[in-house]
Amino acid sequence: MSLGFEVELKEAHEAAITRVEEVLKGEGFGVLTRIDVRQTLRDKLGENFRPYTILGACNPPLAHRALTADARVGLMLPCNVTVEALDSGHSLVRIVNPDAMMGVGELGGSSEMRAVATEARAKLEAVVEKLRS
Amino acid sequence: MSLGFEVELKEAHEAAITRVEEVLKGEGFGVLTRIDVRQTLRDKLGENFRPYTILGACNPPLAHRALTADARVGLMLPCNVTVEALDSGHSLVRIVNPDAMMGVGELGGSSEMRAVATEARAKLEAVVEKLRS
Repeated sequence: MSLGFEVELKEAHEAAITRVEEVLKGEGFGVLTRIDVRQTLRDKLGENFRPYTILGACNPPLAHRALTADARVGLMLPCNVTVEALDSGHSLVRIVNPDAMMGVGELGGSSEMRAVATEARAKLEAVVEKLRS
Repeated sequence: MSLGFEVELKEAHEAAITRVEEVLKGEGFGVLTRIDVRQTLRDKLGENFRPYTILGACNPPLAHRALTADARVGLMLPCNVTVEALDSGHSLVRIVNPDAMMGVGELGGSSEMRAVATEARAKLEAVVEKLRS
């Protein structure tokens, strides 16, 4: 099963992030965390990495149901969305596939957890479709 | 394969977080993100969840190697560490097992990625041992 979904956007890095955040919001996902990978690797290692941002997206009702079903799921939350600069000036967006996490360590052992993952996947696939249109 | 490692600490929530952060630092992991799950669920849903914090821990040299080997790995970064309040007043700490992620979507397809996961796992197991002592 695929680790995540990929969409190429014509927008450059910062504009792509803004658009992704707006579309996530439309599907009920707030962005709780934002890691500037390029800046982090520059500060800590002096490395010159391409613009790459990791957004931590959370749909509170689904997160609450998942944590109630099995508190271990916090090890997989929030749902990551990455925005990476391409040489073309465009951006590559990746969105994690919640269903793919269910096989790890029997996390998907309960029917409620699998139901939440399926709902989360449907919402994130809707995000992908909106970004593609 | 186990999703993560678990350790019970005698410390209450905030003190446990401080200790976990110190031990992570000793193994080269900085905490890049911190999500107060209790506060988030209260603010967004009005729910009363127990104290539960998700820390995003990053070892910059390992993260750089992993991202260079396969940029999709950003969907699994940083390494999550959760600190959850127990009814006893103690805290349950969970630390993600990087090896468990390698089976998802063929992320562990390259030998370099598997090597990074193994190194990260060894460092996080050292964190677990220090927390237990």
